[in-house]
Amino acid sequence: MKYAAFSLLNDPQKTRVGAISSDGKMINELGFDMDLNEQGIVAIIRADLENTLPKPIATHDFNSIRLLAPVPRPRRNIFCVGKNYHEHAKEFSNSGFDGSAKPGEDIPSHAIFFTKPPESVTGPDTNVVIPSMVSSAIDYEAELTVIIGRGGKGISEADAMKHVWGYTAINDVTARDWQQRHKQWFLGKSFDTFCPMGPWVVTANEVDVNNISVKCWVNGELRQNSNSKDLIFNIPNLIATVSAGITLYPGDIIATGTPVGVGIGFKPPKYLIDGDVVKVEMGGIGSLENTFVVG
Amino acid sequence: MKYAAFSLLNDPQKTRVGAISSDGKMINELGFDMDLNEQGIVAIIRADLENTLPKPIATHDFNSIRLLAPVPRPRRNIFCVGKNYHEHAKEFSNSGFDGSAKPGEDIPSHAIFFTKPPESVTGPDTNVVIPSMVSSAIDYEAELTVIIGRGGKGISEADAMKHVWGYTAINDVTARDWQQRHKQWFLGKSFDTFCPMGPWVVTANEVDVNNISVKCWVNGELRQNSNSKDLIFNIPNLIATVSAGITLYPGDIIATGTPVGVGIGFKPPKYLIDGDVVKVEMGGIGSLENTFVVG
Repeated sequence: MKYAAFSLLNDPQKTRVGAISSDGKMINELGFDMDLNEQGIVAIIRADLENTLPKPIATHDFNSIRLLAPVPRPRRNIFCVGKNYHEHAKEFSNSGFDGSAKPGEDIPSHAIFFTKPPESVTGPDTNVVIPSMVSSAIDYEAELTVIIGRGGKGISEADAMKHVWGYTAINDVTARDWQQRHKQWFLGKSFDTFCPMGPWVVTANEVDVNNISVKCWVNGELRQNSNSKDLIFNIPNLIATVSAGITLYPGDIIATGTPVGVGIGFKPPKYLIDGDVVKVEMGGIGSLENTFVVG
Repeated sequence: MKYAAFSLLNDPQKTRVGAISSDGKMINELGFDMDLNEQGIVAIIRADLENTLPKPIATHDFNSIRLLAPVPRPRRNIFCVGKNYHEHAKEFSNSGFDGSAKPGEDIPSHAIFFTKPPESVTGPDTNVVIPSMVSSAIDYEAELTVIIGRGGKGISEADAMKHVWGYTAINDVTARDWQQRHKQWFLGKSFDTFCPMGPWVVTANEVDVNNISVKCWVNGELRQNSNSKDLIFNIPNLIATVSAGITLYPGDIIATGTPVGVGIGFKPPKYLIDGDVVKVEMGGIGSLENTFVVG
């Protein structure tokens, strides 16, 4: 199943959640209380875990709605992984933009985690703001993203996939100069609107997570073209690592890192400029298409 | 004024908020709705900004309450600053535990930000859990901590102090092996219970923030003894830096970094062990005293 958060074009202030019809043309709105709807997909996950998923209350045509990020406002920062594809790890080190890299440490020995704040999240078709007074070194990163179902702590790699509820896509937008200059990556990853997410969540049973194509186009030019089978640290490893000391909760979000082909991989770097359209596509999941605008 | 979040010993499940009496012996509970109380001090900040602070509804003796973290569950991760005192920056580099340091880069040229998750927050007198199966390299970091009042973005250094509502203390507990091994500091900073906070928030008007003593004792032995005047990046700089690209909201929390004297500054390192009592004290603000227990 595919589940989405959305608003009606004629009632844009309210967040609703629903299941996408098998032909992909309609969305069946689920009957949650409006305050639960604000949680987006997390309301569905919690109800699903408790076998209390409400029945559909309305069916909407796709051309009468707007998709929102599946979790429009997460309850805490998004867990993100860096340098998790071999060729990207080399590209990043060679770029000189890895403020925390030591010589000869292209490929990490342990997964590298940082965070993006809830308020950086934006929808699958919104504008991303380039804050030109703050940074003009804005880059894209297409990333397969895990949505946690059942929470837990000290989850083993063997049990980890039981805690995955579904998958979505994010664009881990990054201000490269800030990432480099401030050493820890958080600031350069966290500007407002720097986390397009969606277009929906596909439940884990429908995805072969070891074989998902990860692609990104800028203005129609294919820049990233890889596959989740090339992850350095796979999803069970990531879940085991983060949950070793940190309790995971339903709806937690783990972005698994981006493959080779980002803007700083080119010489000179190809940064995003006003009007650029970035499309991120995860095979079998869906795509995001955001316009970058100077603001 | 000093404002605190607390529970009654005879009603421990409910979070309440109040103002501490001038003699420091009583707490005057404010009449918020119980669901607003869950926000802790943030309910007070929002009401204060709107001039809608409710009147006291009850007075409690300190021996009938337990103080909680002033913001028991922040709405997003805590903003934290690293290597923000000269002598500590050198101590940290010399320790070999800075997974992101390059040679000769002891003193950062720009403020270094990372985050701790909301669920790492614990109260001023609770137990901190040493997850001995995960890490035994547990260290303390006493830190002056800013509580944001009025939110904003692109805040100038000149205006920054108008956005400070008050101050509290945290102990930025750290698993040093995880901080080193995973390069980005987030994981090693973020284990459950790794952010004791409190004991209350002192409003900005009562604090000379450029002259606050920052002290830490382990089992009565003075380990850290510095002053906020020795910060490399001062509070206006930190607020301007974080708000350049990230909108700040009322109740956001910025921990400003720790001075020299942490456990890894000793050779061999002095890690915390089962039963250790760590006291963190900010002059004119208050103190935390947490027992570290293997769990």
